[in-house]
Amino acid sequence: MSDMTEFANKIFSSQPFSNFIGAELDHVGKNSAQISAMMREDLRQQHGYAHGGVISYLADNSLTFAGGLALGGDALTAEFKINYVSPARGKKLIARASTLSSGSRQAVCQSLIYSVDEEGTELLCAAAQGTIVATSPTPREGN
Amino acid sequence: MSDMTEFANKIFSSQPFSNFIGAELDHVGKNSAQISAMMREDLRQQHGYAHGGVISYLADNSLTFAGGLALGGDALTAEFKINYVSPARGKKLIARASTLSSGSRQAVCQSLIYSVDEEGTELLCAAAQGTIVATSPTPREGN
Amino acid sequence: MSDMTEFANKIFSSQPFSNFIGAELDHVGKNSAQISAMMREDLRQQHGYAHGGVISYLADNSLTFAGGLALGGDALTAEFKINYVSPARGKKLIARASTLSSGSRQAVCQSLIYSVDEEGTELLCAAAQGTIVATSPTPREGN
Amino acid sequence: MSDMTEFANKIFSSQPFSNFIGAELDHVGKNSAQISAMMREDLRQQHGYAHGGVISYLADNSLTFAGGLALGGDALTAEFKINYVSPARGKKLIARASTLSSGSRQAVCQSLIYSVDEEGTELLCAAAQGTIVATSPTPREGN
Repeated sequence: MSDMTEFANKIFSSQPFSNFIGAELDHVGKNSAQISAMMREDLRQQHGYAHGGVISYLADNSLTFAGGLALGGDALTAEFKINYVSPARGKKLIARASTLSSGSRQAVCQSLIYSVDEEGTELLCAAAQGTIVATSPTPREGN
Repeated sequence: MSDMTEFANKIFSSQPFSNFIGAELDHVGKNSAQISAMMREDLRQQHGYAHGGVISYLADNSLTFAGGLALGGDALTAEFKINYVSPARGKKLIARASTLSSGSRQAVCQSLIYSVDEEGTELLCAAAQGTIVATSPTPREGN
Repeated sequence: MSDMTEFANKIFSSQPFSNFIGAELDHVGKNSAQISAMMREDLRQQHGYAHGGVISYLADNSLTFAGGLALGGDALTAEFKINYVSPARGKKLIARASTLSSGSRQAVCQSLIYSVDEEGTELLCAAAQGTIVATSPTPREGN
Repeated sequence: MSDMTEFANKIFSSQPFSNFIGAELDHVGKNSAQISAMMREDLRQQHGYAHGGVISYLADNSLTFAGGLALGGDALTAEFKINYVSPARGKKLIARASTLSSGSRQAVCQSLIYSVDEEGTELLCAAAQGTIVATSPTPREGN
């Protein structure tokens, strides 16, 4: 697992957009991943909540990592859908993605995105589901 | 229409995240909208293409504006799905959203997102479809 | 709860298409529902598996019932997405839907559809997520 | 093209579920397909409209055929999303699917489903978008 953690961290840190958003890859599991971002002015929409684009980034990227970990290597999100269920008012956003089903080349994953307030209370603000496709030979296969 | 154009521009310019991305609301129609963003280092993923999160922002926001224009006022994207169909290698991204169906409170819209290369050639890089919901009394209704 | 169970059963039994498919509403919970159908020749596609349309019916209808139960009355599926993850080879299909988030008028639900073989072993064959909207005053509200 | 038309018709007629619904493959193009079904009692939901499951069958199957024709052989729908935009009250349902983007193994397609009334007036009742994946060597490639 430590190889995969290292692999995931290396990919995440080489994503300029993730760095630009200020996102962090908090945790990776065998077929799951958690990505978070602190709210700040730059990430808001016109009513002061997190912009849907920030939430969809968290969905997209957490799905990619959960699926990539399940598939054992570099991967990309081929498609996803997202339902926004409540405004993201909190001071932090957390996306927790897990794998519903995985084959050799493709995984179907779910991500639940939470808004966290000052007291640490989490509120579900979006739910996403999508397809992740393997794009490379994997460290598992390769070594 | 000029009232709606002004209304749309005012909302767009009050979105900190759109400004942060460097996006522009190029054009609005009666039930359509075009949003674009110049590529730059900050918007890339690990392979140098536009990050999926940038493309999903363009999808989300162009859908919101197309639907809001069809509904005649402030609106939000309740949900959408996006298919990524080719890597966004170009120097610019353009999202063109239009309304497939519209009622009094809700519209279903489509957005096609193109990557534009140095020569101005456009390549479809993603297609999105989603639901936009009215959130406020409209300028049309209000005056 | 027994009022809601009765209400759900009454709606289900008044759906000619559910009867035509041979589907049954096995179980309802506070915000969940299980619908199943025995496989038979009529429900197959060209390779002998359950047709995607049968599986999408189970997804759609189980989402509607889970959401309707969460919302407390008659409801409809406004939209959903479905990922098919393995061919449905079994002798029975079971869709289990639950509610991820619910407001007063709208719920976001998930349905997992399983294929069950002769030994009773379940295999996930599809996952769906969608929006359910209330369409009527509810028994809870109404009496 | 006539080979592909024949190939499509042969697959369609070997789908027991399509026959059970009473659906017909009206027309196929290079990367498009039209499937229709006459309304009848068996296809209704509790309010007398076409059941969402019938409409999602038409979406699913028309997407498969449009994508299969674009890919040049047998194919399956890997995933799709559908928005229901108005109740299907008419006497006939028509699904028109076309291909938005196609590679060698995979196509992204859209289907618009219309309800047709006694006078032949069509009303959009649903819009779908999904991914179709090639499952076999094609007549084009193979023989």
